[in-house]
Amino acid sequence: MHVKSTIDGFEVLWNDQPILKHSSATPLIYVGYGEETIDMYRGNFDIRDYVIERTPLRYVEVEDNDGQITLSFKKSKEEETLLKFSLSMTDNELKLTTDFASDSINRFWLRVHADQNEKVYGCGEQLSHFNMRGKNFPLWTSEPGVGRNKNTYVTWQADVKDKAGGDYYHTNFPQPTYVSSEKYYCHIETTAYADFDFRNPTFHELHVWDVPAEIIFEGAPTFLELVEKITARFGRQPELPEWTYNGIWLGIQGGTEVVEKKIDKAIESGVKIGGVWCQDWQGKRITSFGKRLMWNWRWNPEEYPNLDTKIHEWKEKGIRFLGYINPYVAVEGDLFQHANEKGYLAKTVEGDTYLVDFGEFYCGVVDFTNPVAAGWYRSVIKENMIDFGIDGWMADFGEYLPTDVVLHNGVDAKIMHNAWPTMWAKVNYEAVEEAGKLGEVVYFMRAGYTGIQKYCTLLWGGDQSVDWTLDDGLASVIPAALSSGMVGCGLHHSDIGGYTSLHGNKRSKELLMRWAEMGAFTPVMRTHEGNRPYDCFQYDDDQESLDHLAKMTNIYVTLAPYTKSLVKENAEKGIPVQRPLFMHYEQDEASYHIQYEYLYGQDVLVAPVHQEGQTEWEVYLPEDVWVHLWSGEVYTGGTVSVDAPLGCPPVFYRKSSEWKSLFEQVSTIK
Amino acid sequence: MHVKSTIDGFEVLWNDQPILKHSSATPLIYVGYGEETIDMYRGNFDIRDYVIERTPLRYVEVEDNDGQITLSFKKSKEEETLLKFSLSMTDNELKLTTDFASDSINRFWLRVHADQNEKVYGCGEQLSHFNMRGKNFPLWTSEPGVGRNKNTYVTWQADVKDKAGGDYYHTNFPQPTYVSSEKYYCHIETTAYADFDFRNPTFHELHVWDVPAEIIFEGAPTFLELVEKITARFGRQPELPEWTYNGIWLGIQGGTEVVEKKIDKAIESGVKIGGVWCQDWQGKRITSFGKRLMWNWRWNPEEYPNLDTKIHEWKEKGIRFLGYINPYVAVEGDLFQHANEKGYLAKTVEGDTYLVDFGEFYCGVVDFTNPVAAGWYRSVIKENMIDFGIDGWMADFGEYLPTDVVLHNGVDAKIMHNAWPTMWAKVNYEAVEEAGKLGEVVYFMRAGYTGIQKYCTLLWGGDQSVDWTLDDGLASVIPAALSSGMVGCGLHHSDIGGYTSLHGNKRSKELLMRWAEMGAFTPVMRTHEGNRPYDCFQYDDDQESLDHLAKMTNIYVTLAPYTKSLVKENAEKGIPVQRPLFMHYEQDEASYHIQYEYLYGQDVLVAPVHQEGQTEWEVYLPEDVWVHLWSGEVYTGGTVSVDAPLGCPPVFYRKSSEWKSLFEQVSTIK
Repeated sequence: MHVKSTIDGFEVLWNDQPILKHSSATPLIYVGYGEETIDMYRGNFDIRDYVIERTPLRYVEVEDNDGQITLSFKKSKEEETLLKFSLSMTDNELKLTTDFASDSINRFWLRVHADQNEKVYGCGEQLSHFNMRGKNFPLWTSEPGVGRNKNTYVTWQADVKDKAGGDYYHTNFPQPTYVSSEKYYCHIETTAYADFDFRNPTFHELHVWDVPAEIIFEGAPTFLELVEKITARFGRQPELPEWTYNGIWLGIQGGTEVVEKKIDKAIESGVKIGGVWCQDWQGKRITSFGKRLMWNWRWNPEEYPNLDTKIHEWKEKGIRFLGYINPYVAVEGDLFQHANEKGYLAKTVEGDTYLVDFGEFYCGVVDFTNPVAAGWYRSVIKENMIDFGIDGWMADFGEYLPTDVVLHNGVDAKIMHNAWPTMWAKVNYEAVEEAGKLGEVVYFMRAGYTGIQKYCTLLWGGDQSVDWTLDDGLASVIPAALSSGMVGCGLHHSDIGGYTSLHGNKRSKELLMRWAEMGAFTPVMRTHEGNRPYDCFQYDDDQESLDHLAKMTNIYVTLAPYTKSLVKENAEKGIPVQRPLFMHYEQDEASYHIQYEYLYGQDVLVAPVHQEGQTEWEVYLPEDVWVHLWSGEVYTGGTVSVDAPLGCPPVFYRKSSEWKSLFEQVSTIK
Repeated sequence: MHVKSTIDGFEVLWNDQPILKHSSATPLIYVGYGEETIDMYRGNFDIRDYVIERTPLRYVEVEDNDGQITLSFKKSKEEETLLKFSLSMTDNELKLTTDFASDSINRFWLRVHADQNEKVYGCGEQLSHFNMRGKNFPLWTSEPGVGRNKNTYVTWQADVKDKAGGDYYHTNFPQPTYVSSEKYYCHIETTAYADFDFRNPTFHELHVWDVPAEIIFEGAPTFLELVEKITARFGRQPELPEWTYNGIWLGIQGGTEVVEKKIDKAIESGVKIGGVWCQDWQGKRITSFGKRLMWNWRWNPEEYPNLDTKIHEWKEKGIRFLGYINPYVAVEGDLFQHANEKGYLAKTVEGDTYLVDFGEFYCGVVDFTNPVAAGWYRSVIKENMIDFGIDGWMADFGEYLPTDVVLHNGVDAKIMHNAWPTMWAKVNYEAVEEAGKLGEVVYFMRAGYTGIQKYCTLLWGGDQSVDWTLDDGLASVIPAALSSGMVGCGLHHSDIGGYTSLHGNKRSKELLMRWAEMGAFTPVMRTHEGNRPYDCFQYDDDQESLDHLAKMTNIYVTLAPYTKSLVKENAEKGIPVQRPLFMHYEQDEASYHIQYEYLYGQDVLVAPVHQEGQTEWEVYLPEDVWVHLWSGEVYTGGTVSVDAPLGCPPVFYRKSSEWKSLFEQVSTIK
């Protein structure tokens, strides 16, 4: 990249295309001052800003001291410098580092040059829109919302009853990083509230409630090389443990006996099992929302008698035990008591222990900015989970840091809020690392932010509604996997069947089966009973469903050598397992707009059936020679319609693939 | 009022209290530049602003040339003047007139000093909040919304299906004028989009999408004198015609025979009738919304045979005929054809006739900025209505001026949009005036803006839902009457029974009866069949309801001498007929927060029952000696509970009133 001076400004060009442009008439940067109000209700945030001042910095001085370029921005020539960046540049990278920022600035807007036809992706895990052009995306980790579409009854009810309906941009995992179809990415190094606005035809306006420390642009000749660069910066996930490929992780609750029975029943039907995932290993409670957990992170022998021996018995059979933890401790438990005594919990302004309402129960927030508290929590994970024999867990939450909490490091909680998911991931990562179990133990998270790439071993798509809606049902998981993959989280999976059953929403057998079909073509298959198990059809509720799951897990296990190769590629290069079509077909303009299909590695194309009552499905295929998995029919691209009865998800493989014989083997599975 | 210089600014004081305060640290004015997007769908507007720049004008130069004070505002001392006001002042009035405004400014914010405990009222006709403190009020004439509360099912459905749900601030009649509990009013002379923000404890921020021509503050020692001053500025309504007091105006549709029968049936039951109001005198059409009208403003003899003779027969009996008109002409009619040929209709940017979608039919907009077109429309009113014998009408609409229409006067439609209701009122006023019928003919409007005070003979509260909701039902009419009364529209009434029956909402008998009880204590009683008459209980659907209406109309007629005295007071001094409690009890702090009761003149207090299934009602009484109308019991103030069965609305009169014997007479009506 290089800087070119213009009459009263400058341009930054990459491959002769402008990325940044400044003149007094079209200033690059606006700064100002705002007063925000932030209300949190159970992880749902009502965020408003009163922008008192917003001023363009029309005047710039460009200094070049032996190639060290600095940019000094002012309102006008006569006034003082308000903002100063120093630039470091290579052919493909530009980094702007803030040298100086006036104290009176707490709002920052940057306009990045945009082409009318440019598409943008990423910004963490986006569930409604893979290509974000045409909308703005507030970036603040939170509950993703129940329904996520103001036009649906579920969303309306969730809003009215719990302020929980959400909208298209709500996500557990935001990140101030986007990837342009122009083959560069832009990252803003900040954890403040941000809003990336892609509505304007000629610029992207990136807004931050702080002056960011760094702004980075980096380009590459291909998308594959670009994600490699992105993950070189943010980190990559280790490979998944070998045992994962033994089969599905069955989400089971209810105690040792129930687990035992469910394992036997599943095995009898031919279901391949890699693990059992028991959230309630540490006890449960019932609330009006549904079944909730005890939130005191140690084995509950009343709920799970003999688990200490059973866990090893099951391991012998190739079935690992997975648990659950999150970064909060319930007031009723001994962990809370200990942490409270030791001062490990976040405080109120008055100096009391801050209690967060999680819906009819209250918890303390383990203060990860206190190294001793983080160390203690790592020891909880190591001693109570890993040493006990637990080989994986849901590392839940991370989005609820209240903005009025007082933290050990003295930094404003509004700045720490977005940082929390990655801090929580790091606690898990380091606990596993210290136990010497990286690559053997796996935990999965829904919350994320910059840096989660390195510290989270596996994403899951969060709490979808048990329905067919585009914004919160089965379909929403696909853009979620694609967008998080673009920013370097290449391992994604979701609750098979979805999770949230509220306001009359009940999980149907068909939904569960379609979701399992998608799950077979993701790195990990895992079921969830849902928040209200009795309102949700379960995989073992009838034989047809068990047989269907057996087929899907057999596909997953048979496909494992291929999947493993993809997971390895992700660990080595950061190329995501689930990829947008344009990643391998960049000349194909249509492929940039496809968000409900994905390439599973380079050689498999998956188009999950995400509507009810379908027996055929329309699929867009980029130009190549594709074999339909079930019929063996060959297609060369374009929109095609294929038979898609239950049990035969629309999947295609490349005829020229070196894995062709494996795919043929998959196609014979009944 | 007077100006006092301070160290780096100035203050404007009234009664030693600051109204305006400026210093470089707390600037009075912010200016900037914004780009709005405005979408209209059937009178519902989606309005968004992108504020590109907002800058405080920290530096001011105060010049005093022989008492002629000018204020020149700049961003900083070194920069050029961006805004200049000249001041004219008397003891109780301050007027800031814009002398100069930079071309680059299209957004303006003024901060008026506020006391923490100050209350504010007015801003036109506000249906949800009489005291507006704590909220902001966008001021843009539009449909008021169906439901007007995002938590209700009706609102949600209206939003989803028709973008029509609305919110607390949506109103047909906004006005950039507020009245402070500090006994001054502030008016901004503009027709641009505005947003008055009363959320801040120390200032009111008044925002206009233009630099306003004038800003006026005027104070008075009492609220009564204050409304006198307000109406001296904006105008006052003439008295209502004498025939109004003959009884109710029955809203009837369906043709001459139906009207005849309904008159007879009502009279038989003892209902006192002042008029029949037949919207469909010019024909009707059926749409999915319900019954709609033909919108070609002339007698439809198929629908109303012999109306030309009947109208006079009925007049003989003391029953006047009222019709309907609005400022649009339907494409199918001859009026459209004539106006289109003559060039009287507003145009598109391309120069074609602009057609507005009114819900399954299309209309032209008569361009009132063209004096010839306005004159023609006056002649339509005179010839087709007044000359035909029509003595009153609903002058509907006025809020739908699209912002992309091209007008004869060349002014941007975004600036003309808010001006339209008053222009429409003026066409009616001048038509009646030219016919020599002021005080004999009456028309009623829902739309309004600055100046409507003079040109509209009677307000009606718009299209309430046929329900008990606070934001869109019976109750909402009370703050509507009080707020419009505060800005000088002292004659208010509403559709008895409400109007909008959508999304499962159906009018109950009880609602209709309670609404009639309120109507008896307003200047005019008028029923409406509703948009879907068959989903609405009608006053003549059973004998109990007819008897109840007979009682209420007898109350209205008996009370007429008192009501007439109030209407006269309004015509002479602008003191509204329906008044907030604090207007006569300014020492009573609680009275400033009461919005569901009103004083009917000084001597009667009305607390309409606005909830379903009530037989008792709690009423707040300011300190005085009050007689309960029905029991004769005497109360001296505070919160009291009285019996309030159907037929006995909670009404009190002052024991010391000179009208006492009249009220006693009313109390005997069965």
